[in-house]
Amino acid sequence: MPELRKDWISGQWVAFSSERLRRPQVFSTPDTTTLDSEADPFAEGNESFTPPEVYAVRPGGSAPNTPGWKVRVVPNRYPALRVEGELLHRGDGIYDHISGVGAHEVVIESPHANCELESHSLHHFSMVLETYRARTLDLMRDQRLRYLSVFKNSGQAAGASQSHAHSQIIALPVVPSEAVRRITLCEEHYCNKERCLFDDVIAQEKRDASRIVLENDAFVAVCPYASRFPFELRLIPKKKSCHYFSSTDRTLVQCAEMLKKILGAYRHGLNRPAYNLMIHTAPLPHRGGTLWPHIEKSYRWHIELFPRIFGIAGFELSTGCALNAVYPEEAARFLRQTIENLPEEKSHE
Amino acid sequence: MPELRKDWISGQWVAFSSERLRRPQVFSTPDTTTLDSEADPFAEGNESFTPPEVYAVRPGGSAPNTPGWKVRVVPNRYPALRVEGELLHRGDGIYDHISGVGAHEVVIESPHANCELESHSLHHFSMVLETYRARTLDLMRDQRLRYLSVFKNSGQAAGASQSHAHSQIIALPVVPSEAVRRITLCEEHYCNKERCLFDDVIAQEKRDASRIVLENDAFVAVCPYASRFPFELRLIPKKKSCHYFSSTDRTLVQCAEMLKKILGAYRHGLNRPAYNLMIHTAPLPHRGGTLWPHIEKSYRWHIELFPRIFGIAGFELSTGCALNAVYPEEAARFLRQTIENLPEEKSHE
Repeated sequence: MPELRKDWISGQWVAFSSERLRRPQVFSTPDTTTLDSEADPFAEGNESFTPPEVYAVRPGGSAPNTPGWKVRVVPNRYPALRVEGELLHRGDGIYDHISGVGAHEVVIESPHANCELESHSLHHFSMVLETYRARTLDLMRDQRLRYLSVFKNSGQAAGASQSHAHSQIIALPVVPSEAVRRITLCEEHYCNKERCLFDDVIAQEKRDASRIVLENDAFVAVCPYASRFPFELRLIPKKKSCHYFSSTDRTLVQCAEMLKKILGAYRHGLNRPAYNLMIHTAPLPHRGGTLWPHIEKSYRWHIELFPRIFGIAGFELSTGCALNAVYPEEAARFLRQTIENLPEEKSHE
Repeated sequence: MPELRKDWISGQWVAFSSERLRRPQVFSTPDTTTLDSEADPFAEGNESFTPPEVYAVRPGGSAPNTPGWKVRVVPNRYPALRVEGELLHRGDGIYDHISGVGAHEVVIESPHANCELESHSLHHFSMVLETYRARTLDLMRDQRLRYLSVFKNSGQAAGASQSHAHSQIIALPVVPSEAVRRITLCEEHYCNKERCLFDDVIAQEKRDASRIVLENDAFVAVCPYASRFPFELRLIPKKKSCHYFSSTDRTLVQCAEMLKKILGAYRHGLNRPAYNLMIHTAPLPHRGGTLWPHIEKSYRWHIELFPRIFGIAGFELSTGCALNAVYPEEAARFLRQTIENLPEEKSHE
C-alpha cells in the first residue's frame, strides 16, 4: 500500500510506492527518437497494453478500449498513489504519515507513435486541455482529494519513461508545499493591498515589454523576471480564475493556441529539448472550507514550462536558489523571433 | 556583471551569469570514466590550467600554483557570482534585484585524475572537510556575504561538468529560501518547546533504529523518514552546533569517517551512482544581527546526500512533493549491510 510521509526539516511530502521500481526504461540512457508502433503501449490498436481506460475522446463513438480515439486516459500502471483504500492520517512518533490514497493517471495525447503534441491541430491540442478539465471534474467528486497536479514530462532528461506523447495527473490527499507557498504569498498580497499579485505582474510585464513572448485576449506568456531555467516560460490568464477546471472551452482554445506556438518554438529554436509543462491551480474545493478565504480573488491558475537543457545540481537542491546563464529578456527575444519564423506544417488530427 | 533576482511567485533567488554558458562539457552525454591526466585541468602538474589558487594544503611547503598539494581551492572559471563590484539592492518595478556579489570556488579534492574522494585515506578526506572550514573562515570576513553553500556534484546526472573529484563553494549575499525555511521551522519548534528539533529527531530515530545506517560519538547517519530520493542520507551532529565552521578537527575526522563509509557503500552497493553532497549550515554571523535569536540552540548544521538514480520530473518541480520507490527502512538495511561488507582497499594519499 503506498503511503505519504512528510519530511520534518524540508516540509515536503513524499509519496512512497515500491511498484514504481518496476517501471520499464527508466535506467536506459538514450532518448528513443523513433518508436516501433507495434511495441508502443500507448499507440492506437494497442489498447490492451494498458489498464482499462477511465476516459477517452471518441468522435466516432467507438467502444471503450478499442481504436477510434483521439485522446485517452488510463490509470498509470506503476502508480504513486491509488484510489483504493481508506484515507488514514496518523502520527508516526514525531513524524506525519497519510495512507497513499489518491490517483495517478496517464493522458495519452495522440493515437500515433512519434508524434509531438504540438504537431497536432489546434482542435486536437484543445481536446487534450479539455481532457485535463474533464478528469479534474470527475476526480474532484472524491472528497478525500485535496489537490490535482497536471504535468507533462517530455524527453528522458525531463523524467519521461515513455516517448509516446503523454501527460500525467496525480491527485493528492494533501495540498503540496509549493501550492501552499504560492497561494499564501498571493493571499498576503491581497490582504495587504486588495489586489491580485498576478494582475500586478501582468501590469509590470506590459510596462517592461521585454519579457513578453506572446499575448492574446485571454493569456500572456512571459519569460519570468527570475527564470530558474533558460527559456523558462509562464502562461498567465488575464482574467480572475483560480481553478483550471472552471476554464471555458473558448479559454482552453486560446491556451492551446499559445502553447502550440511555444512548444513549436522550443522544438525548432532549441533543437527539441526535453521539457516539463506544469499546471499550477488552486486546491480542490471541499466541504471543510479553505485556509485561504480570498483565494478566488487572490490566486490564479497558471502554466509553467521548463526546458531541461541543464541539470539540477547540488546547489539548487540544497539552497532552493538557481543558477541561470540566460537572461529572460534574451530568452524572450529569441522565442518571439522563433515563433515569427515557425515553418508551416501539416497538422496531425 | 552577474545579478541575483527573486522570483515573485516561488520566492526563489536566481543568480544570472551568462559566463556559465561557456562551461565546457555540459552538453556532452556519456560520463567520462577515465580521464586523460594530461588534459585534466584539476590534475597535479596542470596548475596553470586554472585561475590562481586561493588556498591549498601543501604538506611539503611547495610554492602556490605548483605541484606538491593535496587539496587545492581555485576560483570557478565560470562563476555564478563574483567578489568584485558593489553590493546594490534595488527594486526593479515590483521585482527584487541584487547585484551578483559573492564568490564561487572549486575545491579540488585530489591531485590525481580518476580518483574518488572516498578512495583517499581518512586523513586526506578530513583535509577536504578542513578546507571547507578554512574557506568559510576566510570568506566570512567579507561582511557583504550572508550564506555559504558547500556542495559536491559527482557524476553528470548530478550536474558535474568535470569528472575529477571536486566540490564547490558558493557564497551568497542573501540567505536562500531553503535555509530560511529550515531555520524558521527549527526556531518555531524551539520557541514552542525549548527543544532542538534535531535532538527530537535523533531520539526518534534511536527509538525506531530501522533507519539508522551508522553512528559514532559525534554523528548519526539516517535514511530520512520521508526520503525524497532512494538511498538519500542525512548526517546529523549529535551536539549543538549551528555553524559548520565551528567544528573541531576531531569532529571533522569523525565526519570524514562516516562519509568515507557511506560513499564507499554508494560505490560498491549502488554501482557508482551520480550523487550530490550538500552541507546545510546557519547563515554567516553579521553585524546586522539575526532574524532567528535562538539559532544557536534551535538549529544544527547537517549534511545531505542524494544519489541521483532517478531524475527530477514535472511533478516534483511543480508541487515540491517527491515520488520515491524505495522506503528508507529498506535503504538503511541495504546500506548497513553494504558497509559491513566493504572490501579492504589501499587508500590514496
